[in-house]
Amino acid sequence: MTNSSSERPSEFALIAQLFAPLANAPGAFGLLDDAAVIGARAGHELVVTTDMVVEGVHFLRHDPPELIAKKALRVNLSDLAAKGAEPYGYLLALSLPSRLSMDWLVAFAEGLRQDQREFGITLLGGDTTATPGPLSIAITAFGYVPSGQMIRRGGAQAGDLVFVSGTVGDAGAGLAVLRKPQDVPHAVRDFLVHRYHEPRPRVALGVALRGVASAGLDVSDGLLADLGHLADVSGVGIEIDAHRLPLSAALQGLWGDDLQTRIRAATAGDDYEIAFTVAPGRVGEMVTAVRDSAVITQVGRVTDSRSVVLLDDNGCAISALKGGYTHF
Amino acid sequence: MTNSSSERPSEFALIAQLFAPLANAPGAFGLLDDAAVIGARAGHELVVTTDMVVEGVHFLRHDPPELIAKKALRVNLSDLAAKGAEPYGYLLALSLPSRLSMDWLVAFAEGLRQDQREFGITLLGGDTTATPGPLSIAITAFGYVPSGQMIRRGGAQAGDLVFVSGTVGDAGAGLAVLRKPQDVPHAVRDFLVHRYHEPRPRVALGVALRGVASAGLDVSDGLLADLGHLADVSGVGIEIDAHRLPLSAALQGLWGDDLQTRIRAATAGDDYEIAFTVAPGRVGEMVTAVRDSAVITQVGRVTDSRSVVLLDDNGCAISALKGGYTHF
Repeated sequence: MTNSSSERPSEFALIAQLFAPLANAPGAFGLLDDAAVIGARAGHELVVTTDMVVEGVHFLRHDPPELIAKKALRVNLSDLAAKGAEPYGYLLALSLPSRLSMDWLVAFAEGLRQDQREFGITLLGGDTTATPGPLSIAITAFGYVPSGQMIRRGGAQAGDLVFVSGTVGDAGAGLAVLRKPQDVPHAVRDFLVHRYHEPRPRVALGVALRGVASAGLDVSDGLLADLGHLADVSGVGIEIDAHRLPLSAALQGLWGDDLQTRIRAATAGDDYEIAFTVAPGRVGEMVTAVRDSAVITQVGRVTDSRSVVLLDDNGCAISALKGGYTHF
Repeated sequence: MTNSSSERPSEFALIAQLFAPLANAPGAFGLLDDAAVIGARAGHELVVTTDMVVEGVHFLRHDPPELIAKKALRVNLSDLAAKGAEPYGYLLALSLPSRLSMDWLVAFAEGLRQDQREFGITLLGGDTTATPGPLSIAITAFGYVPSGQMIRRGGAQAGDLVFVSGTVGDAGAGLAVLRKPQDVPHAVRDFLVHRYHEPRPRVALGVALRGVASAGLDVSDGLLADLGHLADVSGVGIEIDAHRLPLSAALQGLWGDDLQTRIRAATAGDDYEIAFTVAPGRVGEMVTAVRDSAVITQVGRVTDSRSVVLLDDNGCAISALKGGYTHF
């Protein structure tokens, strides 16, 4: 593996200078060994997930490097959170265009460092390589879950209630604002852009939902699209009431609060909230378990059809959707 | 995650059609869950490693897709082998240019399927995304090693003997032949190109070397460059005798057998052989352990200097090297 930039040190110097200080676990061997060991935790299984993010697809070329690092990491931590797993560590594979400077890389590593502290995780290993194309970042994240308690996508049953954490649509609105500057108050803009750049993996919520949610996943493609995946795997349908969707004040400030806004919010991606289902008889237990780990909202219910539909205020299915939503 | 090709099915259809049949472990959940669980194996640690390969850097755009798949997988299995780990499974993150057809992807998956059977491993999960750039493949591989027995880079001591498996330089010669067709016999060309396209992870050798090699790694950057890494981490020097380097008949057929050929062989990359060190008093034990798992050759010795040198027939250090070799 080599890199072609004259401005940057070799791969080995890069690793030693920037990344080895991030590798604190004994099993990472200070990144000197090109492999790491992960020990077993009694009574637990290791949950593994991988996501690759690509410049121009998942982030913008001129996004701040700290934020690119955090987003690449957090989309993986969000996967772990939705499974009820406690994050432990990660592997980082980078393909770097030669134009990226050492300053850029230092800032990127600083973003990782901040999030390692915030989420209590460590770098375990990785790989850096040159690329003639866009920056690509593949992260594999590891977490522990008590054996047999991983929250799955396939457990939803007709009659279950559907919940989502936080608010939906903010990240999509933030991306829209970044792509096409709009005349909105700074506070609105900043909130939405922040939601796009720095998703908050719902780790505590995921842990609380173990054993009580019948199914769950994180919202990355858009609430309706992701609930479509959950419904497919569970072999059920889902109805979502548009008027129940939790919208932030900022989103309403940007887009208003009509049905069109609610459709956009339900089909926008990158929220990284958790959507989950709970049997009606277990909602009290769920609320007790969740406590203050997250604000949650009931947005719909699981049906015995096979379709996922968004209902307007009259309970009529809305059919003219686009974006991530492909389940009509 | 979306892809932009009109020729290909959606990410979900791709996964269901091509990749789910490759995911046989119960903990892969048929790839329906965007995460996998890996159970503990009593008395063992999990070894993890990741490598990203990029079109135009690690493979050529028009290489057969089966071979691209195999190489991406094998460079990771080679890392596991060098650690003494038994491969178990892998995660696959793909960023796909829209020009790649469904036929291409079918052939790519077929390459994975063949190697899963050959190496006794399973797909555990992954991610596919679109990219405006070159094809990039990030694989994270998992293997098991008895606790505390991972072969490290840092254990070489002055006086240890240095060995390498198989022959060196073939893959580099194969790449040279691919890049610039040369007038050589078909059998020579085919052998060398095959060595470039289909490296053979030395799994059985790695297992045999547990507890008897003082240090080891796989040869990816070139023998001298990689021994440089081993020497750095171990805090030692290494002398390699050029005349001891094991060269294939095909390589000698292409490049002859003078000192220049031996320098090229020692600095060419992509061999994926294992280089390792053994204390002189344990060589008999090592040979017994290795048995017929691989042909091995003693090529040099560990010194108490801090430099890695290639010696000519007169025992003089050769200083005019290039390529991966940066330790003069």
